Amino acid sequence: MTKKKLDHRALARLISEIENDRDAAEKTLAKLYRDPENVQVIGITGPPGAGKSTLTDSIIGKLREAGKTVAVVAVDPSSPFTGGAILGDRIRMSTHANDPQVFIRSMGSRGSLGGLAHATFDVVNLLRSSGFDAVIVETVGVGQSEIDVLAVADTVVLTLVPGLGDDVQALKAGIMEIADIFVVNKADRDGKERLLAEIRMILELNRDRFDWVPPICETVATEHRGIDGLMEQVTLHGAYVREHRDAVRRPKLARQIEKMAADKIGRNILAILNEGGKFPAWMDAIIAGTKNPYQITQEIGNYISVRKEA
Amino acid sequence: MTKKKLDHRALARLISEIENDRDAAEKTLAKLYRDPENVQVIGITGPPGAGKSTLTDSIIGKLREAGKTVAVVAVDPSSPFTGGAILGDRIRMSTHANDPQVFIRSMGSRGSLGGLAHATFDVVNLLRSSGFDAVIVETVGVGQSEIDVLAVADTVVLTLVPGLGDDVQALKAGIMEIADIFVVNKADRDGKERLLAEIRMILELNRDRFDWVPPICETVATEHRGIDGLMEQVTLHGAYVREHRDAVRRPKLARQIEKMAADKIGRNILAILNEGGKFPAWMDAIIAGTKNPYQITQEIGNYISVRKEA
Repeated sequence: MTKKKLDHRALARLISEIENDRDAAEKTLAKLYRDPENVQVIGITGPPGAGKSTLTDSIIGKLREAGKTVAVVAVDPSSPFTGGAILGDRIRMSTHANDPQVFIRSMGSRGSLGGLAHATFDVVNLLRSSGFDAVIVETVGVGQSEIDVLAVADTVVLTLVPGLGDDVQALKAGIMEIADIFVVNKADRDGKERLLAEIRMILELNRDRFDWVPPICETVATEHRGIDGLMEQVTLHGAYVREHRDAVRRPKLARQIEKMAADKIGRNILAILNEGGKFPAWMDAIIAGTKNPYQITQEIGNYISVRKEA
Repeated sequence: MTKKKLDHRALARLISEIENDRDAAEKTLAKLYRDPENVQVIGITGPPGAGKSTLTDSIIGKLREAGKTVAVVAVDPSSPFTGGAILGDRIRMSTHANDPQVFIRSMGSRGSLGGLAHATFDVVNLLRSSGFDAVIVETVGVGQSEIDVLAVADTVVLTLVPGLGDDVQALKAGIMEIADIFVVNKADRDGKERLLAEIRMILELNRDRFDWVPPICETVATEHRGIDGLMEQVTLHGAYVREHRDAVRRPKLARQIEKMAADKIGRNILAILNEGGKFPAWMDAIIAGTKNPYQITQEIGNYISVRKEA
């Protein structure tokens, strides 16, 4: 609230750099990265059609009413064929698009979802470091990459709606486990009780795994109903994260480091493979038919290691 | 043509295994992998709406007329939201769906396109090893992952259509460079001459880079027109690959190995990071705020290496 904020144009330029040159992004963020305790990164996820963007819009409104500055990253995994969704999000978020205290950025898929996860870590971490009071990352909760992205969030809000067929069951396994708050949006719809019962059952089955028992909030985001109750839980969870910082943040940071390290190694794989000088010989063996690519890959697995002396 | 073929049910089982357990897939393929000279893997790519599936269907027909057995892998990068496209491909390919000499498999995105590329390498390599005369891999030529997938193909057919807006320019940079044969499909449409001129210009600009100068074939796949001409070029290119096996295959195999190695390392990243015993200390430093995740990632980059003695 008090920290100096980067201006939007400078932020946009840094984000473009991050998206286009990951080595440069790493260097920039190694310098800029800050992790202030009072900044809360809120992940909003859920299946398509759950009303995530409308909910995000309502949450931005509440944060602004409380005088907080907000940055929003909308992760759009739509392929280049369905670019429409990006536009859709932008239109729905336009309530706050002209508010200078709100920074909104949509991220396209730029080719591969794998790459998207890393770029999203970077953009969210940049915004976390840039003096906003809250950072919202909105992502469709369908694929593994989208779940990976949520390792960057302090508080994960899983948005569901009644009557979406197999409801909870249709969600990617794993997403139920990272939800800190459940939202039953469009709670005026038929099927709400069934959905609530399903969520409660899952929470009950997993009760031993929780220190923080995820609350279930009912909302009708289009009518701004239930948002105060949701914000109360978001605030409570923010306090919980601050209090149990080590226990909550450590596994999330470990997951980020894993992903970032795998990405870095992937980008440098040719240099790593060439370092030992074996790469040409491997290729010769495959071309000659004495080894096949899978045997070589197995060899490479044994070959890569860490410097013990490092 | 003479090699014993795995039955379809056994193949389907192996493919499921490959998709679900990459470590097991690697072991299986290390044993099963064969790369017979007379098997041609044909990649069919191009933008959405270019008629790739119809073209694939025509090509299957021609290969069957010549008495050849065919396996088809349709890579469908559509997200879980647009599952319709998979069904669409299946319907359009149904001409040959009941032919016991034709094996057809659609691959969904299964979460991440990155993972899809590796699974596609595996499935195509399995089919290459399984006694089919030809393997077709059909993929939308939009993202980097789709281009990566084509490293597994001996012959890449890039399908374009007139009047798709910015035509050639809209395609991902890099895809023009891997095309062995250009197809102008729907060649009865307005805008054909402009598209042909654009392709010729690009070929002219890159002429020095080619040993094989990519021919341009005109087709109307829905009416099976121009397919004989295309098949002639596919056959010619197959002969060219056999003749210049080392020069053609080596860079493609190198790209496959890079991707497979990066994937393998990514899967084992936790074990690799833990091997040096530094992971907990890295986490401690981040939690304590003495290092940030980007500084740690840079350290990891220097830390991973190859065993010199291997």
